[in-house]
Amino acid sequence: MEHHFTPSHYFNALGPYDPVLSVRDGDSVVTTTVDARGFDHRREQVTPRGNPQTGPFFIEEAEPGDTLVVELDSIRPNRRYGFCESSVAENVVDPDYVRELPQAGLAEWDVDVDANTARLVGPASALGELVIPLAPMLGCFGVAPPRRQAISTATSAEHGGNMDYRRFVAGTKVYFPVFEPGALFFLGDGHAAQGDGEIVGSGIEISMDVRVTLRVLKQKLCGWPRAENDEWIMTLGNARPLDQATQHATTEMLRWLQQDFGLDALGANLLLAQCVRYDLGNIFDPAYTMVCKVHKQWLAR
Amino acid sequence: MEHHFTPSHYFNALGPYDPVLSVRDGDSVVTTTVDARGFDHRREQVTPRGNPQTGPFFIEEAEPGDTLVVELDSIRPNRRYGFCESSVAENVVDPDYVRELPQAGLAEWDVDVDANTARLVGPASALGELVIPLAPMLGCFGVAPPRRQAISTATSAEHGGNMDYRRFVAGTKVYFPVFEPGALFFLGDGHAAQGDGEIVGSGIEISMDVRVTLRVLKQKLCGWPRAENDEWIMTLGNARPLDQATQHATTEMLRWLQQDFGLDALGANLLLAQCVRYDLGNIFDPAYTMVCKVHKQWLAR
Amino acid sequence: MEHHFTPSHYFNALGPYDPVLSVRDGDSVVTTTVDARGFDHRREQVTPRGNPQTGPFFIEEAEPGDTLVVELDSIRPNRRYGFCESSVAENVVDPDYVRELPQAGLAEWDVDVDANTARLVGPASALGELVIPLAPMLGCFGVAPPRRQAISTATSAEHGGNMDYRRFVAGTKVYFPVFEPGALFFLGDGHAAQGDGEIVGSGIEISMDVRVTLRVLKQKLCGWPRAENDEWIMTLGNARPLDQATQHATTEMLRWLQQDFGLDALGANLLLAQCVRYDLGNIFDPAYTMVCKVHKQWLAR
Amino acid sequence: MEHHFTPSHYFNALGPYDPVLSVRDGDSVVTTTVDARGFDHRREQVTPRGNPQTGPFFIEEAEPGDTLVVELDSIRPNRRYGFCESSVAENVVDPDYVRELPQAGLAEWDVDVDANTARLVGPASALGELVIPLAPMLGCFGVAPPRRQAISTATSAEHGGNMDYRRFVAGTKVYFPVFEPGALFFLGDGHAAQGDGEIVGSGIEISMDVRVTLRVLKQKLCGWPRAENDEWIMTLGNARPLDQATQHATTEMLRWLQQDFGLDALGANLLLAQCVRYDLGNIFDPAYTMVCKVHKQWLAR
Repeated sequence: MEHHFTPSHYFNALGPYDPVLSVRDGDSVVTTTVDARGFDHRREQVTPRGNPQTGPFFIEEAEPGDTLVVELDSIRPNRRYGFCESSVAENVVDPDYVRELPQAGLAEWDVDVDANTARLVGPASALGELVIPLAPMLGCFGVAPPRRQAISTATSAEHGGNMDYRRFVAGTKVYFPVFEPGALFFLGDGHAAQGDGEIVGSGIEISMDVRVTLRVLKQKLCGWPRAENDEWIMTLGNARPLDQATQHATTEMLRWLQQDFGLDALGANLLLAQCVRYDLGNIFDPAYTMVCKVHKQWLAR
Repeated sequence: MEHHFTPSHYFNALGPYDPVLSVRDGDSVVTTTVDARGFDHRREQVTPRGNPQTGPFFIEEAEPGDTLVVELDSIRPNRRYGFCESSVAENVVDPDYVRELPQAGLAEWDVDVDANTARLVGPASALGELVIPLAPMLGCFGVAPPRRQAISTATSAEHGGNMDYRRFVAGTKVYFPVFEPGALFFLGDGHAAQGDGEIVGSGIEISMDVRVTLRVLKQKLCGWPRAENDEWIMTLGNARPLDQATQHATTEMLRWLQQDFGLDALGANLLLAQCVRYDLGNIFDPAYTMVCKVHKQWLAR
Repeated sequence: MEHHFTPSHYFNALGPYDPVLSVRDGDSVVTTTVDARGFDHRREQVTPRGNPQTGPFFIEEAEPGDTLVVELDSIRPNRRYGFCESSVAENVVDPDYVRELPQAGLAEWDVDVDANTARLVGPASALGELVIPLAPMLGCFGVAPPRRQAISTATSAEHGGNMDYRRFVAGTKVYFPVFEPGALFFLGDGHAAQGDGEIVGSGIEISMDVRVTLRVLKQKLCGWPRAENDEWIMTLGNARPLDQATQHATTEMLRWLQQDFGLDALGANLLLAQCVRYDLGNIFDPAYTMVCKVHKQWLAR
Repeated sequence: MEHHFTPSHYFNALGPYDPVLSVRDGDSVVTTTVDARGFDHRREQVTPRGNPQTGPFFIEEAEPGDTLVVELDSIRPNRRYGFCESSVAENVVDPDYVRELPQAGLAEWDVDVDANTARLVGPASALGELVIPLAPMLGCFGVAPPRRQAISTATSAEHGGNMDYRRFVAGTKVYFPVFEPGALFFLGDGHAAQGDGEIVGSGIEISMDVRVTLRVLKQKLCGWPRAENDEWIMTLGNARPLDQATQHATTEMLRWLQQDFGLDALGANLLLAQCVRYDLGNIFDPAYTMVCKVHKQWLAR
């Protein structure tokens, strides 16, 4: 079943809040997200800044210990105006280079969904014209965290949240552990495109039309978010420093390979040895995100 | 001019040692490297283990303050036997997962240069058959470090060394700062293929036939190793934790964009904002390696 | 005014929960805390494990933007049985040493408040008899966090929480930023004594009789918890890695020195140069804690 | 036997250099060190800056695999002029606070050995008068490193080097692993006093008169530097981030307790549980230094 949901309020944390809609295993939700600063498709601010979340959606079959599968069916900017910071974040450059960073205001982008491009409008610099392809994604989404915590949309953890991974585009399937009855799924913080690491602290921030399909697996699958697309299986670790995020993602991948792909411990280790790939999700948020990947050509389910 | 050089001794550190051959700016060197444990193309141990280096080569025009350009012309395994560790390194998994790592011996690979494949020979595991494409690369190469240091081939720094970055294949051009008269170029530690991060502590270790061309730029170009291939420009940061390696690589890229590609500070920052890419070189060696990349389509020189 | 409060329920997160008692600026609260696993003075489990918190207490004058001052008047174990883990945590030793850690159960301690000692009861080891002095402290306390988050008692942040700093003994005054109306003060996780870093993941865990006095300063004082005793002023940074915790604590101290002690930026930097001291709070919890200290002999208020 | 040695040249790395003097097990050396910038007791520059080292001293009985014991008999400033940086280093504060650091020149100190004080002479600030007690120490000393490396005096590792730990004062005994024949002992970088962490990048830098006694233990004792004074045994870990330095120091302490103090693994872990202490050596150099300590009251040899 497909639900059309128009949000009237938003959350700046993922937590055990009252659901806005109840759906069933396999249902789809068509909805909208506002941009990271709370502005909607008309560029009107409808809620305070900080990755405001649409939701939470209650999935009736989902109970603590289950796994929620989120299929990102469609993520489409619903306005032309996008923005990002214009300077690399202080924590991503050498400490003694911080004073050399420019201190300009926001950079603005013209996002053309039909042409599938974003064009840098300003500020003016020696860079001149820059037109890049769109790759619309969600920066922050996930489920209510464990222990009835309510965790800010600035950060991420086992429940997802602000992972800012640029491969979370339409066509990706994401797995989350369920901690609360109904899972309580949230989404927001759309980016028309994003670089690796989100090193300026933002993608091309924009409001979105989104369609997701929500499924429940009646088993505990994962300790950290997992994902897959046509080519790759992926595990995400969210922590600081990057070393620890990498440890979480790698450990989760070793577990997944043994759990679902018929490998023993030795086989899982041997496969990763020369076939593992990593993506840098973000190196800006309070928790950084590293992604461990294995190409599906090496796997038999 | 092309020099053919057969090594008779090797070094386990990069330092201000007596050169084995003197060449001129633009010359090429055809030589061989032994594997990480000191075994040559006949699988005979000819020197102690630890990434033994062929060289150093003295480039006559190179003086401290210059830049050495190393063109990796050809890197070709010269035997069939390759090996790697069979378990992910303890520092790459969650600390409380260490006890679940398998403790097997070496994994062995049959490397077939004509078929361009490596086949996992053993140990036996549930993984079964695994045949992967070759992507022969050098794990450890660089120049004599600053301050007349001699730095172990286990690690890396501004002078290069054990960066273990799997994109250092034939067709790549690498830039090093020159610290010693003649630069003193070393090379070794060939891998028939390698995963991101070198997370088992080794690629498919093997001896190699190598051809490099060495050029001198009479100017200080870089503070950290830089590289380019047909598609990308790249900067490398070598440090722990990964966060700091990322800071070095990103800062170096901001400098390069402003130095050579006509950008001001604001333009360099705006370009990286949504176009930057990162590769994880290694997360095993004493210094980890992160690579910051920009696609050449965004650059006008 | 002194309030006597007997808790009937506990929280495993610090968040915007309904207060259990309303007090006024300057009032004292005499109450009890259960141990980290939810056992009370009779060694009966009265609530689930995980640093259960007594509270929250609503301080009537406290509004967001104010500062809450918590005076630790008295912290006194109210039973004899204490316990801790018997092995250093995996994340505190070299990754390749993890397999050499002992895997014993809990260590048990006999806590004698009159003698002011804790005696190691078991498990048996070559260490034999060990009797150490008590230094009763609170491991986890603080206020409701910003953005209406509810943050697990496993970790810590700007609002305090599980800082596990062994100098939080009676006679210490601790300052927290106020984020919620009434501040909402929580306390728990008493330790009869604790080593630096809480490297086994626990102090000598025990239930406590506690008396605190709560005061409100009608101004924003701090970004991170601050503290003082007769000799020292202290700032706490809670983060991973320790480097970042140290950055937070040091920055907060530079701010405090300029805010309250008549120093300019240069003077604050010059004072820290050779007079700064650091304590390692904890290197076990999700956020580590470093403490930056300056002796009061160097300060004129 | 006591040797009086007047240096005529200095080294900016610890490496396998020609010794300046050969001594025997148990001999003492009375010598001088220049300050971190190469200035001697007359404030004349006699060698380039960068922690120039006096030595190396060859200890005849020392062979690779042995342990060198360095007794710091006397460390005494031999001039009145000391200096330090006047601003906390960029890497020790929050990245977004870097721009608020003062950018003054050197701070100067008047060092009075008879009065046992250092007085801040300038630059002028709101701090006004500051007079602190002397605690003269060596910032950089150690032995030639393994694998015939020559490692810059900017950093530290298993062989010692630039550890910048303020408890390395007279009366301390320091243990180093021996890697080269004769051990090759170096010393320099005296500080009249130093704060924890050396957070401005320098102690009160000054030239020194030094007396050390050198002893050889014919056994491999340690993997990292160890030390003791009347009250404490100490192990040092040198690495980044601080987390890893802490891991090295803690692991080395667990080993020492089992090796020399009659403890089994469980006993060593139980002792550290509540009795361990840590000092922050430095958080400025390329390798940070953490110190793990146990009070001798808990030990029976």
